[in-house]
Amino acid sequence: MALIVQKFGGTSVADADRIREVADQVARNVRHGNQVILVISAMGKETDELLRLAGDVARLRPGREMDMLITAGERKAIALVAMALADKGLDAVSFTGSQIGFITDTNHMNAKILEVRPERLREALERGQVPVVAGAQGVSTDRDVTFLGRGGSDTTAVAIAHVMAADVCELYTDVSGVYSADPRLVPGARRMAEVTFDELLEMTATGCPKPAMRSVEFARSYGVTLHVRSAFTWEPGTWVREETRESAVEEASVIAVTHDTSDAKVTVERVADHPGVAASLFRRLAERGVNVDMIVQNVSLSGHTDISFTVPQDSFAESLATCRSMLGDLGAKDVTGDEAVGKVSIVGSGMKSDPGVAARMFEALGAAGVNIEMISTSPIRTSCVVRRDQVETAVQVLHQAFDLDA
Amino acid sequence: MALIVQKFGGTSVADADRIREVADQVARNVRHGNQVILVISAMGKETDELLRLAGDVARLRPGREMDMLITAGERKAIALVAMALADKGLDAVSFTGSQIGFITDTNHMNAKILEVRPERLREALERGQVPVVAGAQGVSTDRDVTFLGRGGSDTTAVAIAHVMAADVCELYTDVSGVYSADPRLVPGARRMAEVTFDELLEMTATGCPKPAMRSVEFARSYGVTLHVRSAFTWEPGTWVREETRESAVEEASVIAVTHDTSDAKVTVERVADHPGVAASLFRRLAERGVNVDMIVQNVSLSGHTDISFTVPQDSFAESLATCRSMLGDLGAKDVTGDEAVGKVSIVGSGMKSDPGVAARMFEALGAAGVNIEMISTSPIRTSCVVRRDQVETAVQVLHQAFDLDA
Repeated sequence: MALIVQKFGGTSVADADRIREVADQVARNVRHGNQVILVISAMGKETDELLRLAGDVARLRPGREMDMLITAGERKAIALVAMALADKGLDAVSFTGSQIGFITDTNHMNAKILEVRPERLREALERGQVPVVAGAQGVSTDRDVTFLGRGGSDTTAVAIAHVMAADVCELYTDVSGVYSADPRLVPGARRMAEVTFDELLEMTATGCPKPAMRSVEFARSYGVTLHVRSAFTWEPGTWVREETRESAVEEASVIAVTHDTSDAKVTVERVADHPGVAASLFRRLAERGVNVDMIVQNVSLSGHTDISFTVPQDSFAESLATCRSMLGDLGAKDVTGDEAVGKVSIVGSGMKSDPGVAARMFEALGAAGVNIEMISTSPIRTSCVVRRDQVETAVQVLHQAFDLDA
Repeated sequence: MALIVQKFGGTSVADADRIREVADQVARNVRHGNQVILVISAMGKETDELLRLAGDVARLRPGREMDMLITAGERKAIALVAMALADKGLDAVSFTGSQIGFITDTNHMNAKILEVRPERLREALERGQVPVVAGAQGVSTDRDVTFLGRGGSDTTAVAIAHVMAADVCELYTDVSGVYSADPRLVPGARRMAEVTFDELLEMTATGCPKPAMRSVEFARSYGVTLHVRSAFTWEPGTWVREETRESAVEEASVIAVTHDTSDAKVTVERVADHPGVAASLFRRLAERGVNVDMIVQNVSLSGHTDISFTVPQDSFAESLATCRSMLGDLGAKDVTGDEAVGKVSIVGSGMKSDPGVAARMFEALGAAGVNIEMISTSPIRTSCVVRRDQVETAVQVLHQAFDLDA
């Protein structure tokens, strides 16, 4: 008998039909002799709707109240899922974040889990019940309701899998696993049977939409095996774990191509090239909440250098303004911005031992007429910034160049 | 400085505009130097929508899960109202039933308050905050979320007014007070400046829709002064308190005409007239959850009698079946049912000392050609069952007969 944590959210529980289908699948799992703990996030687009409503009501939206508001979506969903399970003859019992002992810090809208006290969860399992836990929520050390942030339900699921020593944490989604590229761009994209935590982290960091990066980091830290799979086809998806794949010898060095078109590029021209200049720029940006992604600094010519970096588009205006206000301090000439960029990355643990990979990437892009504007690398990833309208072509030629087609 | 509990719900907080208007009014109250505690129920028709959704998801709907579901509506509403208040510059803080210390029994869907521990409420007031409390919810002695039932937000408001010794509990609604008759039926219906608890209880028991009867009983028990008023016009409404009206001398004996078209009539014909027969019938009905309203038993003729009673329409089929199954035990001949009935009542504390009131009622109905099928009385109320299609006429002629027009 296995203990399985199953997380469902968004499209998987978007309406009454979907909820009943999830209940069917859980009932089947329980009949097969497994113990199941469910983690549920809000139905369909409910979180977005609640945020829109808050925007209609007030400009000033205290984090404490936002958390009270948003977490209502998950409460609604757990109650409905528990009813659907009862309807299938299972003894199901819903739990809020507070009831299940998720103690968090007081950082509203993005609270961190401090401790999990799963007494009620254990009692429910001992009674043979199916616990249905509200994702992404907890209670703070100030006894207030807290929200763990977007994607927080995945974190809830991983944390429960960890404290309950579950055999696997299944993250159900509307795609059937982790793909070698976005199937909308690359028809031959392949679902991977298995990836490592590091690979998945690089992929989520460079544009692979699911699962939420924070939950993957959490799973890696605690050695929780993940299974990313579909709540629509119910077929086996992609397993995520620490160990090397068995077929490592034959393994391709690159396993996936990811892309991201949500960033913009900022270039500060002819910055004075002396110690501390870059530091002062990026500290100021950090203070203003700008989340800088790639940074490239060219070789210094005649005591000056150009610094380029990418930021999320919604921080673009703020970034330009910040740089402009610092032109004097930086001894720089000008600031330019470019919103029409995109990022393409290749990812794979095997890259570490395959020095030709980056060159092959640049050649493939060059042959396709895709100009590379910035480059950044990690041991298992190489990313290039290109024109946004060439992102699709870039993903396609790289998927082919590295023989990833199914 | 007065301490005022203000309850808003349904249409008063139906959308973002309404919520902002409520916040405006609260801000005005606070500027005038009052301390305010808000009690909020779900927005618009949200509770109905949650019930519909539950019906779509499952036939078996455990009470514990229904309570988890329904109370989500209030959580959403309190968060939005708190944000709207923050936007007006007030320091507002929302509280769930559990956070505000509403300890209830474990009777889901219709929990009773056992105790209120308002420590966090007191602390919030001491800090100068405006508490925004979720109506109709609590936490059970089993640490589960509980719902106090329909109209439970009024009960929450009255309970808070009681434990905090508030000066008044204002129940805001979409009508501007308690009327001498339904203004949709009687254009000349008059808003009453003041009624007693007993009068309001008789009125709510006989069809006056607001406020919820249970909250009025609670207010009477604890001597909490109520003020039923409009969240749309904000004009003074109807005060409800124990003491006699000042103008008692000139007071009319009848203050209001109410009506109710939600009942059906059942008649058991030629029941054996010996002790215990009626008891066995009404005990069986009670066991099946049928809430019997009026009961009339005719004078016994030749050892047999007819028993008629009214029940809510949704218990009508169950009532007929129960009576049929007992025909033998009752020694009765037949059971007949009639769904086309309605009830018209006159209410007023002054009726106690005015013996001619009932006669005047029957005369007025007779003169209008309205036949009376059943009569039931209390010291301050007389009710008649009539044909449903004559209810409107009956209300109009009675309103005129007792000089209630504005």
